[in-house]
Amino acid sequence: MAKRHCFILEFVAESVIVIDPQNPTQSADYLIKGGTLVTMDAKRRVIENGAIAIRGAEIVSIGPAVQIAEHIQARQTIDASGCLVIPGLINVHSHLAMTIFRGLVDDQPLEAWLGRIWPLEAAFANVSNVRAGTQLALVEMIRGGVTCAHDMYWQLWDNTRTAVNAGFRLVNGPAFTEIVGPDGVMPENHIPRAQSYIEEFRTNPLVTCCVQVHSTYTTSRQMLENARQISEDYQLLFVTHASESRVEVETIQQRFGKTPIEYLHEVGLLGPRTLLAHCVHLRDDEIQLLKDTSTSVAHCPESNLKLSNGVARLPDLLRAGVNVAIGTDGAATNNDLDMLGEMFTAAMVHKGVWGDPTCPKAEHVFEMATVKAARAIGMQDRLGSLETGKLADIAILDLDAPHLTPLYNVYSHLIYAANKSDVRSVFIHGKPVMLNRELLTLDEEEIKSAVRRVAMRINSGSQG
Amino acid sequence: MAKRHCFILEFVAESVIVIDPQNPTQSADYLIKGGTLVTMDAKRRVIENGAIAIRGAEIVSIGPAVQIAEHIQARQTIDASGCLVIPGLINVHSHLAMTIFRGLVDDQPLEAWLGRIWPLEAAFANVSNVRAGTQLALVEMIRGGVTCAHDMYWQLWDNTRTAVNAGFRLVNGPAFTEIVGPDGVMPENHIPRAQSYIEEFRTNPLVTCCVQVHSTYTTSRQMLENARQISEDYQLLFVTHASESRVEVETIQQRFGKTPIEYLHEVGLLGPRTLLAHCVHLRDDEIQLLKDTSTSVAHCPESNLKLSNGVARLPDLLRAGVNVAIGTDGAATNNDLDMLGEMFTAAMVHKGVWGDPTCPKAEHVFEMATVKAARAIGMQDRLGSLETGKLADIAILDLDAPHLTPLYNVYSHLIYAANKSDVRSVFIHGKPVMLNRELLTLDEEEIKSAVRRVAMRINSGSQG
Repeated sequence: MAKRHCFILEFVAESVIVIDPQNPTQSADYLIKGGTLVTMDAKRRVIENGAIAIRGAEIVSIGPAVQIAEHIQARQTIDASGCLVIPGLINVHSHLAMTIFRGLVDDQPLEAWLGRIWPLEAAFANVSNVRAGTQLALVEMIRGGVTCAHDMYWQLWDNTRTAVNAGFRLVNGPAFTEIVGPDGVMPENHIPRAQSYIEEFRTNPLVTCCVQVHSTYTTSRQMLENARQISEDYQLLFVTHASESRVEVETIQQRFGKTPIEYLHEVGLLGPRTLLAHCVHLRDDEIQLLKDTSTSVAHCPESNLKLSNGVARLPDLLRAGVNVAIGTDGAATNNDLDMLGEMFTAAMVHKGVWGDPTCPKAEHVFEMATVKAARAIGMQDRLGSLETGKLADIAILDLDAPHLTPLYNVYSHLIYAANKSDVRSVFIHGKPVMLNRELLTLDEEEIKSAVRRVAMRINSGSQG
Repeated sequence: MAKRHCFILEFVAESVIVIDPQNPTQSADYLIKGGTLVTMDAKRRVIENGAIAIRGAEIVSIGPAVQIAEHIQARQTIDASGCLVIPGLINVHSHLAMTIFRGLVDDQPLEAWLGRIWPLEAAFANVSNVRAGTQLALVEMIRGGVTCAHDMYWQLWDNTRTAVNAGFRLVNGPAFTEIVGPDGVMPENHIPRAQSYIEEFRTNPLVTCCVQVHSTYTTSRQMLENARQISEDYQLLFVTHASESRVEVETIQQRFGKTPIEYLHEVGLLGPRTLLAHCVHLRDDEIQLLKDTSTSVAHCPESNLKLSNGVARLPDLLRAGVNVAIGTDGAATNNDLDMLGEMFTAAMVHKGVWGDPTCPKAEHVFEMATVKAARAIGMQDRLGSLETGKLADIAILDLDAPHLTPLYNVYSHLIYAANKSDVRSVFIHGKPVMLNRELLTLDEEEIKSAVRRVAMRINSGSQG
């Protein structure tokens, strides 16, 4: 028997099956079997008729089904025949609860949009409404194959608990701001509040803590430095909006004689633990600075288009070797949280605008929602690909739809043709959160009703 | 009774209920009842809890459900509660059977793409394969709320019959070309062939006949004039690709000292019966020429982006008053036939590229897939809006999805948030072709299998 196992180990070396000779049959909680695995591992293996074994939160085996199934005794087997099995999509920039404002303010520039949205937030972003909006965002994202999302919004504690309770992976943390928002946090309380949040959630397996600042134009230098200090103390990701609009860049240049990127660098806020949202308006030397400091970018093409902020220089960022990931931004500027749609837009718009039909290629866009997104949030060792030892964040897409027929290339379909309605099942941290399109951790009907009630109050002009 | 009817006629004048005093209760084949009607009539009425009565191919009553239902005795009632009821979407430019090449050649410029696709067409665009591809296109479009599409492809007769057999409305006609394509039509036979096609299909209620030319760069002047003559003789729509790529514009300028638009004008091919696909590269005076001649444009933003042809000057075209409609182009450059997605792209990309977040507004994009599309194909008196006397081409979208929650504005949702998976039922020419997502005129499973077999042959490099 031992000899046979040795043989198998050698034969399936590509499959990274680690077999204990004393215990050739491994137990697993779930076995996802059949279907085409788009692993996004270093070799970018695509495994036809593959299988993934999950134990606890992790992938314990992955490879051809015929080899994996022989060694795995699973509590439950998920049939993925006729499906694509992909790493769960990572949405690296959003404001989740803004689903409550979806479609309320369209076809306006950023400044006019903010001028309309901020008073609405002041009136309506209370715990109850924000919880309904966050839950709706989770429903929408799970249905679209998203397993991890960044959030920057009011009611921080409650949002984090809402996600954790739904079994959803969240990148979240205190957002330092000069204004007193709907959650009543005073600027002078940001440091102890940040420490308290981080202490509470840093060990939560579903939470990737970060430190956030809305932007350089809404925050004092002192506050930026406070945020930097906390992010350094805890070695946490730092997130802010940067160079989103021309007005923002001009404002910061007038105020400090520097662009937002240069200013953030001066404050010591660029680096491998920094994720900058948007980065639409960059000079060549700023792109090089992002590369040199290993700063990541959250590319949000739909929000940038809709608000007329422009088109980020994605081909130049990619050529320079900057780590770029994709985010949907909030549903009030998009108007959905559809990462498949956002990848499509990212793949299409740059070809037309920058004149190179070969950049970005479909496969490279998919990296921006998986491996590069994992790196952008500092989770490259745990997320972003289907590999033994990584966390089991997985989406299963049905290939049967007419718009996915025929199939020549999996990356082409994932980027140019797949629809959120194709997502059939989703695992996060080893647990199913949707099976055969049935949500397991969220009451969708109740959540939609709650958000509709919020919208009725917004429409009626009442408060809260 | 008569008095009461007069009163109702007055009261519901907006609803255009024509009531015969001798026969106050009208019979209808179908009554679509409940839901919000987005009529796209001249007043752009949006009717909450509306109803539409259909008799034969036409809408015979439309208005508030409470008023319509009283006077209509329908054979079958369709409950549209919680839905949006919209004019069926019109896809004004496509090459339907190219679904068989979906995702086969991505991330290439137009010329390289054509260089790859044309030999594949020569080998595989036979009647059987093209029929499978056309049927798949019909399945995909019906599932996406499209009720009428243009087609320009080989195997003309068969494609038209395929659509008619499926109860689908097609804009189709002979495409004049210098090359002998996979259907073996010799250039010298184009005129009698065109006459024969037109004579056969001009009275078919589901077919809008047109005369087509691939482009000015693939067709001689004599052939353009022949096509013009046929289109004049029969007073038919003329369709061609124009000013799609820079290379095309430069080629025609070198050949004739004129742009494609100027050259078409010289040949007498601009006018209210002309629909030009793409029109990406236009000068100001060419935009004015399109306006002055009442020529329509088929805007295909996704194809233009993906092939790096650029971004059409949509805001300038709209400001000049040119009639612009939307097309998906073929699935080999898109990679789907999703008009909701194409409207989204049309609504997003111009804001980001041309710098005006207010143009185009969501409502105006919806016009480009409905009333303006109907005008582009010369069917403005019969299609494009939900009005008494118009043909009953109707799509019903379920509003229940999380990504459509909450609802503030119907146009916002139709353009920025609705997904093809939201389309529940579709009527064409008064007949249901999909009810509750069940296709009634096409065998989807058999069609997908047939297209997969075609793809296997293409993959294996075999012929036909």
